[in-house]
Amino acid sequence: MAINTSLRIGLFGFGVVGEGLYKALQQTPTLQATIVKICIKNKEKKRNAPADLFTLEKDDILNDTSINVVVEVIDDTAAAFTIVKTALLNGKAVVSASKKMIAENLPELLQLQLQTQLPFLYEASACASIPVIRNLEEYFDNDLLHSIKGIINGSTNFILTKMFEEKLSFTDALLLAQQLGFAESNPTLDVEGFDAANKWSILLAHAYGIVIHPNKLLFNGIQNIQSADALVAKDKGYEIKLVASAKKLSNGKVAAYVLPQFVSSQNPLSFVRNEYNGAVIESSFADKQFFYGKGAGSFPTASAVLSDIGALRYSYRYEYKKLYHQTPHTLDNNFYVRTYISFENLQHIPKEKLEWVEEWHSAEGRSYIVAVLHVKHLAESNWWREKNVSLILHEDAIIENIDIVTVKKKSLELAGL
Amino acid sequence: MAINTSLRIGLFGFGVVGEGLYKALQQTPTLQATIVKICIKNKEKKRNAPADLFTLEKDDILNDTSINVVVEVIDDTAAAFTIVKTALLNGKAVVSASKKMIAENLPELLQLQLQTQLPFLYEASACASIPVIRNLEEYFDNDLLHSIKGIINGSTNFILTKMFEEKLSFTDALLLAQQLGFAESNPTLDVEGFDAANKWSILLAHAYGIVIHPNKLLFNGIQNIQSADALVAKDKGYEIKLVASAKKLSNGKVAAYVLPQFVSSQNPLSFVRNEYNGAVIESSFADKQFFYGKGAGSFPTASAVLSDIGALRYSYRYEYKKLYHQTPHTLDNNFYVRTYISFENLQHIPKEKLEWVEEWHSAEGRSYIVAVLHVKHLAESNWWREKNVSLILHEDAIIENIDIVTVKKKSLELAGL
Repeated sequence: MAINTSLRIGLFGFGVVGEGLYKALQQTPTLQATIVKICIKNKEKKRNAPADLFTLEKDDILNDTSINVVVEVIDDTAAAFTIVKTALLNGKAVVSASKKMIAENLPELLQLQLQTQLPFLYEASACASIPVIRNLEEYFDNDLLHSIKGIINGSTNFILTKMFEEKLSFTDALLLAQQLGFAESNPTLDVEGFDAANKWSILLAHAYGIVIHPNKLLFNGIQNIQSADALVAKDKGYEIKLVASAKKLSNGKVAAYVLPQFVSSQNPLSFVRNEYNGAVIESSFADKQFFYGKGAGSFPTASAVLSDIGALRYSYRYEYKKLYHQTPHTLDNNFYVRTYISFENLQHIPKEKLEWVEEWHSAEGRSYIVAVLHVKHLAESNWWREKNVSLILHEDAIIENIDIVTVKKKSLELAGL
Repeated sequence: MAINTSLRIGLFGFGVVGEGLYKALQQTPTLQATIVKICIKNKEKKRNAPADLFTLEKDDILNDTSINVVVEVIDDTAAAFTIVKTALLNGKAVVSASKKMIAENLPELLQLQLQTQLPFLYEASACASIPVIRNLEEYFDNDLLHSIKGIINGSTNFILTKMFEEKLSFTDALLLAQQLGFAESNPTLDVEGFDAANKWSILLAHAYGIVIHPNKLLFNGIQNIQSADALVAKDKGYEIKLVASAKKLSNGKVAAYVLPQFVSSQNPLSFVRNEYNGAVIESSFADKQFFYGKGAGSFPTASAVLSDIGALRYSYRYEYKKLYHQTPHTLDNNFYVRTYISFENLQHIPKEKLEWVEEWHSAEGRSYIVAVLHVKHLAESNWWREKNVSLILHEDAIIENIDIVTVKKKSLELAGL
């Protein structure tokens, strides 16, 4: 593909992001990029673009040799994958915003890039306007990246902010998010952490060369967090955020998960309020860096797509340096985490699985403990997502080594358990 | 230059940054970049690298056709310019960290890039580890960039943080900064704003296509800020930061300056403490973005140099889109600013130049006013930098239109001036 000539784009999808992109491109003539065809599902809908741009036939784009770039911003995961695959095989560069599709098909998408040697860019798929994928690709070498922690789902962050700052219940905060367009009418994907897990799976590939299907990641959402938890957090000087976390352990492997977490005011993530996203990256050379911006919405997403289109002008491709040019890291679950667990009924807590209890607060209706658990147990059990139990990690939750036997015995005694 | 082959680097300078880079490169084998020669001034100093790497002759690098990349991290501005110029003319890609050299010679450096069509990258020259130049180049189209505001000098930010949080005097805070290595033994360049003006001049080219010599910029440092100012700021719910600012005016031109400014806790810049840097970028599509990280130091600077070296692997060059592909913006000084001015003696304040006084606080020793001034007057006068006068901008200082005659008369009367 002669990419330094002008970019002729075939666009799939004309929803909020697609239309945002169409408008944005009209205002950025320097990109020398033109949308020449738009493929949609429903021809009946009124569209704010000339009628002759639209088609219902995906092959009108995929088989058009004059189109050198396919941009795909549709909702249907299976269809998106077919489009991306065919476009690459037909010699077109591809820009995509479909995080679920990318996360679930990453191995095959990597293979397609190797095979075709064509650019497949997807900055919009994680944190929208924040250029986190590109920066991870370009700035942080594998061995030097200590950790990356991010608030990567705007809906849940909006809900938590309202629960925390305005003392709304989870249900009321969710309703408000839906009214303002920050949460879907079916909010499960966001609220229960699936969306964050998809994004985290993508970012782990660029951060550490780890390719993992999102359903193999340890994750949870915020569906069980109670107003009472927000009060306890505040008393302790924390906020609660849904934090995606990856950290190099002393054995060289990586601990990664997406879980609710206490965040202190010293942590840059505490600055991330409402629908915003943010990521803190710690590395040997650059030290601590923080990227903050809008993680969703038509224009922030379109801005990331635009930047990918811009990068095509100099034939930019992800190198997946951490995957191909080094021995990629592997995930590990040989560590403990310090957790806050609130519950209605002590019966729902498997006491024998607690390595250590630091704090025990009993109250009518709802109690909590602060306890240390092996992360493997979390990965293999479900009680902490069920039965109205709320599990929240401490800020620096990871404990790599403890003298378990002594500590456990003593602390369980102390706690009266 | 066959840049996708391995990079053979000639390095100028082996001070903290040069040595940091040397170590960093050894830990990043994926870059496939090797330092083959290092030019230094003083051969007697003990160096932590093999002796046969070093030379005193710059031509050993500049005339070596096997070297395809020159990295320049020396202090001497004139020598740095000669090196960069010769290297480009000799067909080598160049990476530089010399902000003063770049800021002062930008027109000629732009010309050299046009002439040679070679990459000249300098991410390290502004905000060190924060990839602000690259992001401005890639992400924010001219017409869509509403504003960029940054804390771009770590020394002054460290001093202000200590004055604010620990109530140190300016002199004590400066001393502490020097002891900790965050300020030079001759701190003038940092403290009086020259360093920030150099960086701002570079960033304005990438943000708005504005090429301006730093000594034509309106700027000041923090040398006149008093502990009393910090107390007033705190009372009003602000901190004081040295903020570099550029904002699109309603006439389409750009207001730009580097001045001390009140910053509220809602402003992401309030999160930038001690020696850190940060930048807030507002644009039509991405909305508000915030980049935060270390703005100085050997490894943060080396990390930016490394990322430039990495970008050479895919022949990345700055396109200066805002300068070449659009009508570049121009600076304007047809606006007013809302300022806080503290002083010992009212005699030093040219009352006739105040358009409007909002607040007047008189106290023994030191008084202050909150007043609106035409920015042109600031640009043309010097009283506000002298005679122990301290001028600090309000958070949203710019006022584009006021009905001057009425307001001025009334407010001066009210203020009893």
